Amino acid sequence: MKVDHLYTPCLLLDRKKLNQNISRMRSHLHDLGVQLRPHVKTAKSVPVALMCANGETGPITVSTLKEAEYFADAGFTDIIYAVSMVPSKLPRALAIINNGIDLKLLIDNADIAKEISAYGEKENCIFKVLIEIDSDMHRAGLSPDSDEVINVARALHDGKGTIMAGVLTHAGESYYGTSEDDFIKMAEQERRAITTAAEAIRKDGIPCPIVSCGSTPTATFGKDLTGITEVRAGVFVFQDAYQAGIGVCKKNDIALSVLTTVISHKKNQNRLITDAGGMALSKDYSTRGTSFDCGYGLVADSKGNIIDNLIVSGANQEHGLITTKNGDLDFEKYPIGTRLRILPNHACMTAAAYDVYNVMDNDDDISDQWQRCNGW
Amino acid sequence: MKVDHLYTPCLLLDRKKLNQNISRMRSHLHDLGVQLRPHVKTAKSVPVALMCANGETGPITVSTLKEAEYFADAGFTDIIYAVSMVPSKLPRALAIINNGIDLKLLIDNADIAKEISAYGEKENCIFKVLIEIDSDMHRAGLSPDSDEVINVARALHDGKGTIMAGVLTHAGESYYGTSEDDFIKMAEQERRAITTAAEAIRKDGIPCPIVSCGSTPTATFGKDLTGITEVRAGVFVFQDAYQAGIGVCKKNDIALSVLTTVISHKKNQNRLITDAGGMALSKDYSTRGTSFDCGYGLVADSKGNIIDNLIVSGANQEHGLITTKNGDLDFEKYPIGTRLRILPNHACMTAAAYDVYNVMDNDDDISDQWQRCNGW
Repeated sequence: MKVDHLYTPCLLLDRKKLNQNISRMRSHLHDLGVQLRPHVKTAKSVPVALMCANGETGPITVSTLKEAEYFADAGFTDIIYAVSMVPSKLPRALAIINNGIDLKLLIDNADIAKEISAYGEKENCIFKVLIEIDSDMHRAGLSPDSDEVINVARALHDGKGTIMAGVLTHAGESYYGTSEDDFIKMAEQERRAITTAAEAIRKDGIPCPIVSCGSTPTATFGKDLTGITEVRAGVFVFQDAYQAGIGVCKKNDIALSVLTTVISHKKNQNRLITDAGGMALSKDYSTRGTSFDCGYGLVADSKGNIIDNLIVSGANQEHGLITTKNGDLDFEKYPIGTRLRILPNHACMTAAAYDVYNVMDNDDDISDQWQRCNGW
Repeated sequence: MKVDHLYTPCLLLDRKKLNQNISRMRSHLHDLGVQLRPHVKTAKSVPVALMCANGETGPITVSTLKEAEYFADAGFTDIIYAVSMVPSKLPRALAIINNGIDLKLLIDNADIAKEISAYGEKENCIFKVLIEIDSDMHRAGLSPDSDEVINVARALHDGKGTIMAGVLTHAGESYYGTSEDDFIKMAEQERRAITTAAEAIRKDGIPCPIVSCGSTPTATFGKDLTGITEVRAGVFVFQDAYQAGIGVCKKNDIALSVLTTVISHKKNQNRLITDAGGMALSKDYSTRGTSFDCGYGLVADSKGNIIDNLIVSGANQEHGLITTKNGDLDFEKYPIGTRLRILPNHACMTAAAYDVYNVMDNDDDISDQWQRCNGW
């Protein structure tokens, strides 16, 4: 099938760029001697996860238990669920583990450690649990040098239904870096935080096998991963306008786009209307207020060449509004029916509206359709 | 099943509030003597559309051809697809019509009118086509008194594969009103625009049977619908924080919420972390910059009582960040595992992340699960 025959809006995935993005990350981490445990929350698709481990069902990170089930069904057995566990979700995790999956959980609280352990003991299961460490005050986790880290580690280690599996951090603040220097510093800060926590735990006599860190910016630019056992990163597989904006990739590396059709001309308001609105692009506007503000996504022609003077200025439910940054729109250049591509601000959010990736070769041939797993 | 047994995040739909919202709109339009053609893009769910016509498969408006197919399968036969048609989508529309559905299309361009007509003639189909009229410079459509309206009407009327089915407008700017007076004025402006276009077309000797207008604010507050044959409105079924913010409904009318669980305490940053992040809530932040800014949604307790001092200040992919507007968070009040409800900023966007509504009675019992139709 050709790209022109696709019904719009739909997702296009450029296989060559995807391959390049994955190879670059694999090669960088290989040089640093650390394993990649890709965060599959971005693509949520088996073929993409396989590519990350050279065709193998390698270790992965998931953001939902539904992803864990979906990837387990496809043969992936080594899975970290990298969102804080709560007791009400334990039966679902137990079912996954009882299906032979090495599913590891994450917490940052000693009381929850004890609850998980009690449940594990009752169910004859020993849950492997990681402790979330906060390396940059971005979101969740314990300060690396706090007593609470030891308290949680002790609760997991001493509990009969748990094993202390390791420590994990996510340098989410790296998204606010603006230069390679920033990312290198943030990667080192992330490394120091997580290895500090691991050392404190070991000093207390408790094993800490996994030392896990990662975000696409720090994974891309980190120079030294001494003490780290694995790196998680997610969006690097597709890249997006945000990552390009902060300098983590080039615009030309972005492998994912939304194919859309111009459906109306609004000449008295200098804009094109397309069929890719808020549903098709997501309402993510994370580039707002940055020096690389690009509305609801970068506008490209049907071959993927970015049209610098156009911007998606609005995204109603099923209507995208595209205008010029400067001067008048040349409506004759974009007749109704014209196909455009919108490169997403945030690939994870945009992809979530779709069930399928249309995998594209040579900018024109759709050679595969890859399913993805949504919801919870 | 009880609400407490639901896996989070998930959608809760309060049947009583849903009923009240629909009854109120039906009764208001009945008093004004005009038919409701609900825009089913909000709920995208058969049971909700049935409630809008007192259990019948009444006339509906859709935002995608996938919705048209889904509702056609459920017995709905009178459907307006209210997004500009492009020739590449005609085969799919034709298939729906050939299944016995009275599907009406929308355009705002004479060349497209001719293309549709030519395709209809070739396929032995007479497409019913409406003309989109711009009543408030919000999005698409032709100025009501422009010559172009007559040109398009003439092309549809004269074409052998089309019928001029009527005119349609959407007063989208009414979302920027802030008082009942504003909405009443905007409703009258919408009415004048669409009836002006209809009269001009009829004066030219072309029938214009459908005169369709609507948005939730104007449909709610309009006082006079003389000349209008039907009103489309969508979000009124659920209402949301945005509609409450501009005064179209009360917060207590909001029928839809996301059930979420507190998964972590971040004491040194004065925030709770929940499992309802950007995927579960959408990244819609349409209340940003308004006097009723409520972050990524209104926070309520598990029974739906709004907690005024809490705000969803951040929404990462699977992490919601909740903080206080004033003072310190009382963490003991919200232990890990606590269930909260988040009332969406924009119900249409939030609902789109889910396949199912958990229909709730008496704030506690889940009596039904209603499917919804996503994608394209």
